[in-house]
Amino acid sequence: MSEEMKIPYKIYLEEDEMPRDWYNVRADMTKKPAPLLNPGTGQPMTAAELEGVFCADLVAQELDNDTRLIPIPDEIRDFYKMYRPSPLVRAYCLEKKLDTPAKIYYKFEGNNTSGSHKLNSAIAQAYYAKKQGLKGVTTETGAGQWGTALSMACAYLDLDCRVYMVKVSYEQKPFRREVMRTYGASVTPSPSMTTEIGRKILAEHPGTTGSLGCAISEAVEDALSRDGYRYVLGSVLNQVLLHQSVIGLETMTALKKYGIKPDMIIGCAGGGSNLGGLISPFMGEKLRGEADYDIVAVEPASCPSLTRGKYAYDFCDTGKVCPLAKMYTLGSGFIPSPNHAGGLRYHGMSPIISELYDQGLMRAISVEQTAVFEAAELFARVEGILPAPESSHAIRAAIDEALRCKETGEEKTIVFGLTGTGYFDMVAYEKFNNGEMNDYIPTDEDLQPGFDSLPKI
Amino acid sequence: MSEEMKIPYKIYLEEDEMPRDWYNVRADMTKKPAPLLNPGTGQPMTAAELEGVFCADLVAQELDNDTRLIPIPDEIRDFYKMYRPSPLVRAYCLEKKLDTPAKIYYKFEGNNTSGSHKLNSAIAQAYYAKKQGLKGVTTETGAGQWGTALSMACAYLDLDCRVYMVKVSYEQKPFRREVMRTYGASVTPSPSMTTEIGRKILAEHPGTTGSLGCAISEAVEDALSRDGYRYVLGSVLNQVLLHQSVIGLETMTALKKYGIKPDMIIGCAGGGSNLGGLISPFMGEKLRGEADYDIVAVEPASCPSLTRGKYAYDFCDTGKVCPLAKMYTLGSGFIPSPNHAGGLRYHGMSPIISELYDQGLMRAISVEQTAVFEAAELFARVEGILPAPESSHAIRAAIDEALRCKETGEEKTIVFGLTGTGYFDMVAYEKFNNGEMNDYIPTDEDLQPGFDSLPKI
Repeated sequence: MSEEMKIPYKIYLEEDEMPRDWYNVRADMTKKPAPLLNPGTGQPMTAAELEGVFCADLVAQELDNDTRLIPIPDEIRDFYKMYRPSPLVRAYCLEKKLDTPAKIYYKFEGNNTSGSHKLNSAIAQAYYAKKQGLKGVTTETGAGQWGTALSMACAYLDLDCRVYMVKVSYEQKPFRREVMRTYGASVTPSPSMTTEIGRKILAEHPGTTGSLGCAISEAVEDALSRDGYRYVLGSVLNQVLLHQSVIGLETMTALKKYGIKPDMIIGCAGGGSNLGGLISPFMGEKLRGEADYDIVAVEPASCPSLTRGKYAYDFCDTGKVCPLAKMYTLGSGFIPSPNHAGGLRYHGMSPIISELYDQGLMRAISVEQTAVFEAAELFARVEGILPAPESSHAIRAAIDEALRCKETGEEKTIVFGLTGTGYFDMVAYEKFNNGEMNDYIPTDEDLQPGFDSLPKI
Repeated sequence: MSEEMKIPYKIYLEEDEMPRDWYNVRADMTKKPAPLLNPGTGQPMTAAELEGVFCADLVAQELDNDTRLIPIPDEIRDFYKMYRPSPLVRAYCLEKKLDTPAKIYYKFEGNNTSGSHKLNSAIAQAYYAKKQGLKGVTTETGAGQWGTALSMACAYLDLDCRVYMVKVSYEQKPFRREVMRTYGASVTPSPSMTTEIGRKILAEHPGTTGSLGCAISEAVEDALSRDGYRYVLGSVLNQVLLHQSVIGLETMTALKKYGIKPDMIIGCAGGGSNLGGLISPFMGEKLRGEADYDIVAVEPASCPSLTRGKYAYDFCDTGKVCPLAKMYTLGSGFIPSPNHAGGLRYHGMSPIISELYDQGLMRAISVEQTAVFEAAELFARVEGILPAPESSHAIRAAIDEALRCKETGEEKTIVFGLTGTGYFDMVAYEKFNNGEMNDYIPTDEDLQPGFDSLPKI
């Protein structure tokens, strides 16, 4: 026990141990992720084309498949210091509760007001928008973490922030909306009457409660219709995974500082931003043949893009105004069952993650939501942190692995990403507490309408 | 600038730098706080009398005016390690925004799921209850931080937890309720039909939305009516301030580590638990003549117990079932205006704080709530943390002092307690965002009904 205890409950790096560069995993990939395509021409999007929608510096990062380390500007590092480095926590209490020989660590990204890792990319994207002299940015948000994170970053840099929030979330999560408003953002329920695509969708589906794909279309249209605005996105894109590499870099530094070698690295997967950020430097070692790790993506059984999707070019949004991305997808027409609580509801997956998965460099599993909330409740009670439903997918997988180790006696070292807290997800917890939560596994027929929307390329 | 930057944004102590003992400020007070009195006899409460309501070890701590250092049991220290040490943050961004020569630090207690410092005493009280072989504990909660903290501590130790939640909070804060339920607590809106005092109050005031004083009465009655249960309280009592001394001890260690000498220490004041914990070791140095500090309590203008109350023996609860405490009080019949948002709504004040204040060892000021929310919004935007309304009273006072320093050019070092986060207070923020927040300063006539309830002693 005394030897064990040399590792503190929480490993905090010093500020000068924080990364000075983001790590671009594409530089170490022999086969690169497929390029974004112009849906009109079927040709790869050029920088000039992308710069109509995105900030110039971000476009450069999006297209850069070669530069391994990209310096983090000082202004962004200063902002990071307000809430980073985030702790790498040894889950002593969870290990004890499970009576497992496994050693469990989690990288906790929830200690900031956005409640998640999203802030890591929000500040970067807002910074480059400010640097370019823009007036503001537009975006969409579903569960609300990304919108909150972007509002915080924009308030800090005095940029205007216009958020399209999926209508069902806008109505069910008024508190998330008020956090964004406190940070000075304007929040519009989507679909709205303020955009052409919003009006079109409302005319066709008057009662719709919105979707992420639809809110993306509105936010892009809004940015294009204003002088001095660009659109920003909180996941999926290469640039977002680049910014999120701070998670994995800090994790790796903390592990090496204490001489800990992980066997397994687990992350929940929606669009892939946390997962990609957490695994990047470990995947880099794997790609360079320096180390091997069992890398696992965990997704909801009700939105199984990696485990049951197709690897194909698809639209990123419902309105089909965005470029095409090659990714594991359920089709842009796919909408998860209303049973599904929490995030991780995007129809596609980061092209980087999709390519790494396709090359067999990582695994993916899916879990059902009642089991996810059971894991969340157990974790909250023994580790003291009420986790976000999204993060709890990784908790479930880590617990299952630790229980397998109990059977086999293996002393595996498991690291998982705890992306955030569940303080704004109490409607879902209430459902669980009242025994009213259901599971839902779509049949192949349920998935088919999504695949019907795949473009002919 | 480069010399300044030697102090990191966040000072985290190592785990082995965390306090091993709580500090009992009463040991250094020449004139001790007045004893609790039996309301029936007017005589000081004996340990035997108190042990009917409170756990034995806690009674010993409550009555101990002499032992300066009381060891923190290892089990409690292990729990502390899950969310402590808490960071002492240098508010670089706030200083820059205010353009002040003052140096501002805050001790941030909100990085845990209860969202506040309350967990420091909750785990201690639950631990001693468990040690005594009890089945469970009862308590009341208003805004919900204390109830959440106690639920977390009880879940960790496998103790039953029964919370009486002020009805208006129960209805307006369903999410706080669900967090407690997720941690396995039973939550009853107060006044309720489950206690005699609850039924009596409901019969007399059928439409009442409850009060803290009334919920205390119900929780005490509930504990007394069950085998193996005791009542626990989250503020006011000597034992609570003792446990909360970890805040001040960590703050002092962190400051000394970096050679920082504070001029002014600011804490918000409701029942006095955070304030007392933060200032204790500094007050100790002051009492022993080793150092001098300007120590400031900040309370709401709408519930001004220190600045406009009387220093007298009073009931701690509405139902008058608790012992009498000598404290600054607005009278147990006082209820803050419905205009008043957030906590800090207790009619009295910790007897320790009351006595220190009466001896002129500290100051008290009151602030109005619109100004408090303006400070909260500014703080959130530049420092990135959305503060609890309670904590924002201290922020307001720190900002005002920093602005005074800007006028005078003084390079004061200001330390304040940031007790928690406002994630469950968005109804109040929404009011503020919509420009619907009002101030309210009671007239002397408004305060009088409270004073009428003072016992004749």
